[in-house]
Amino acid sequence: MTPVRIGLLGLGTVGGGTLELLARNGDEIARRAGRPLQVTHAAVRNPDRPRGAHAAHVERLTDPFELVHHPDIDIVAELIGGLEPARELVLAAIGAGKHVVTANKALIAHHGNEIFDAARRAGVAVGFEAAVAGGIPIIKTLREGLAGNRIDGLAGIINGTANYILTQMRDAGLDFATALADAQRLGYAEADPSFDIDGVDAAHKLAILASIAFGMPLCFDQVQVHGIRNLSAVDVDYAGQLGYRLKLLGIARRSPAGVQLRVHPTLLPQRHLLAQVDGVINAVLVDSDALGQSLYYGAGAGAGPTASAVVADLVDIARALTIDPEHRVPYLAFHHDHLQALPVLPDDAVESAFYLRLTALDQPGVLADVTRILGDLGISIEAILQKEPAPGASHVAVILLTHTVRERALRDAIARIEALPSIDGSVVSLHLDHLEH
Amino acid sequence: MTPVRIGLLGLGTVGGGTLELLARNGDEIARRAGRPLQVTHAAVRNPDRPRGAHAAHVERLTDPFELVHHPDIDIVAELIGGLEPARELVLAAIGAGKHVVTANKALIAHHGNEIFDAARRAGVAVGFEAAVAGGIPIIKTLREGLAGNRIDGLAGIINGTANYILTQMRDAGLDFATALADAQRLGYAEADPSFDIDGVDAAHKLAILASIAFGMPLCFDQVQVHGIRNLSAVDVDYAGQLGYRLKLLGIARRSPAGVQLRVHPTLLPQRHLLAQVDGVINAVLVDSDALGQSLYYGAGAGAGPTASAVVADLVDIARALTIDPEHRVPYLAFHHDHLQALPVLPDDAVESAFYLRLTALDQPGVLADVTRILGDLGISIEAILQKEPAPGASHVAVILLTHTVRERALRDAIARIEALPSIDGSVVSLHLDHLEH
Repeated sequence: MTPVRIGLLGLGTVGGGTLELLARNGDEIARRAGRPLQVTHAAVRNPDRPRGAHAAHVERLTDPFELVHHPDIDIVAELIGGLEPARELVLAAIGAGKHVVTANKALIAHHGNEIFDAARRAGVAVGFEAAVAGGIPIIKTLREGLAGNRIDGLAGIINGTANYILTQMRDAGLDFATALADAQRLGYAEADPSFDIDGVDAAHKLAILASIAFGMPLCFDQVQVHGIRNLSAVDVDYAGQLGYRLKLLGIARRSPAGVQLRVHPTLLPQRHLLAQVDGVINAVLVDSDALGQSLYYGAGAGAGPTASAVVADLVDIARALTIDPEHRVPYLAFHHDHLQALPVLPDDAVESAFYLRLTALDQPGVLADVTRILGDLGISIEAILQKEPAPGASHVAVILLTHTVRERALRDAIARIEALPSIDGSVVSLHLDHLEH
Repeated sequence: MTPVRIGLLGLGTVGGGTLELLARNGDEIARRAGRPLQVTHAAVRNPDRPRGAHAAHVERLTDPFELVHHPDIDIVAELIGGLEPARELVLAAIGAGKHVVTANKALIAHHGNEIFDAARRAGVAVGFEAAVAGGIPIIKTLREGLAGNRIDGLAGIINGTANYILTQMRDAGLDFATALADAQRLGYAEADPSFDIDGVDAAHKLAILASIAFGMPLCFDQVQVHGIRNLSAVDVDYAGQLGYRLKLLGIARRSPAGVQLRVHPTLLPQRHLLAQVDGVINAVLVDSDALGQSLYYGAGAGAGPTASAVVADLVDIARALTIDPEHRVPYLAFHHDHLQALPVLPDDAVESAFYLRLTALDQPGVLADVTRILGDLGISIEAILQKEPAPGASHVAVILLTHTVRERALRDAIARIEALPSIDGSVVSLHLDHLEH
């Protein structure tokens, strides 16, 4: 059968990986798709740079806009990343009637609504499986595999860089800066790591997952984001002593009151499966009404895993080329005119359990003052850990685990505790979650 | 839009669960599928038995053949189980031009080739997501999500009953018979549990997974099957002492020499994620070349999880009603004329590590005899555990863990060891696998 003709925007790690995968497994892919998938064109900044044997039969263009308008291309794969010119190129490709596949989570999180609207009007498909959790088919699972379920929530380790750093802090007892430097040396973190360690990348992915899970338009701006930059090794250590592990989680939950969208470091019971997802691996736990809890685990980044998701989208689109658009899987899982803009809860309306660490004068009565404040605000305590003071030290560390509490009440309590003369400096607070259905 | 009209064969646990799920989440499902999914007919043995409110608008037929030929039905869901009349009914539905969804793993494992052949000629779809691992979308993942990958192997806990029994044997220290009785009391095991505890049910599912993963016709008859019926509590205990857990695994791997298809109790390192899948939960670990190792975890049985998979298939088919059949996802992931009958390796050609337990006279030299036999056959030993004899006992238990060895060589070694005068009775041998990529 006639091959599906693919144009790649970018031949970097992901573009090169996609080209290599389509070449290496070309036969097996054609046996599945029913027709060959062939990369015919690629837009690259430097056409003279050697790209390996697989690129030999690929026509290279230096103008990406020439590619997106090229009459001999069926599907455009946007693999350059960033917001611009990616957005402009994707909209131009859609305008030219091309189907689009992208691995660009920032683009979808920020401009997905606009892109899907344009694609719907043009009657073309847009695949973005590679935008979330690398090669794990979590988009397909939420959009199709769980189509019969009401999805109540999900929680995911969706940034491998942050998870690698947290794993190193725990296993090697490193502080954040050293673990980050290791990750950078090993290529797991970029020179400017802020997107990963400040939780922005995870928030991009969470916004996408939440839209698909709940059938709401993308609302990245409403995600609460707290990264791991300020985590101290002592809290990783104390968490371990109390039977918990620290993970940077993206959490989306819906209730009659509204939707929670949060990215923050979270204490998980160390026996929980998600707590045991270490290194650069990703995993997403989904709560749905018919299936219950299900978990999806795999490589969240890298050339191979990302290419795996890109090619899965290419095969889906190759199959769907002949369907009338109304029968394709909707971009955000629910048909456009059935998306509902659910209210997103503000920070302080969210309920969660918490880990608190205080530095207190080593004198009687301090714990009584602290527990009284918590009691007055209706915050019940699950556990208290008071460390022996270091020899000659005047202060001790006190760790408290609370039961579920409204974040607003916790902030009040922290303000009152910090005002106690016996408390030194500010109170460290971290979310704690058992992730029960 | 006009609803898709569904006829249910059977209104038992799964049929009733499917009806209930389609009613409860009807709006959400229609928002995804673009049109309502409506159960219009159901074939039941006893039409007078009350079926709950959801069944009120469902026309009940006592003749299932009337249902499969009914002109007002688009999709037939076969939820009665067993080989006959399920096979005859599914073929009749296909002959009548109906699309089919089934949760029947025995039917697909035994008669899938015939059914898919008939469906292909009739140009209808056959969905069977519910046949493997309940609500986990593992069929969709293998057929679509990993479409760009060469799948090298998979290993799964795909029988919840056996996994519940093994979990109870480990955690509660029960022997097999007691754990089975508990499972039966709790409804996790049937009155006749042989399909579950003898590994037949897992073998049905493994045969289906292997065909889809490797692109080969179904070959259930060639799966090596060993159940858990004869497992003794002492081996579960010794495995634990050595840092392993016993799981009933279905394992499919391919190599240039051929394909391994095996179901048997297996020692897994207790830190491996699969070793931590307890109770009635299922999980499948997939090795593929682009993504690497990925894992899919969730409820493998029950009305809700099974209905979740059935409805996902119904939604897929509702979407694909208008596609020309050649562009649908192939039944076994690869297009019919591209399936390859790969050779399946015989038992004794398979390589694996093993756990051995011998009962030996408590006298010097025995271990020397045993290790010499293993050495002579080129079997290297990873660990030896020799227990203290019970007070006054003349025999001791000796546990050996081997490195990877050809099964044929191991059988030779066991025969020679059992022939030693210092060895009492037969040698217990169990597979051991680290499930490394």
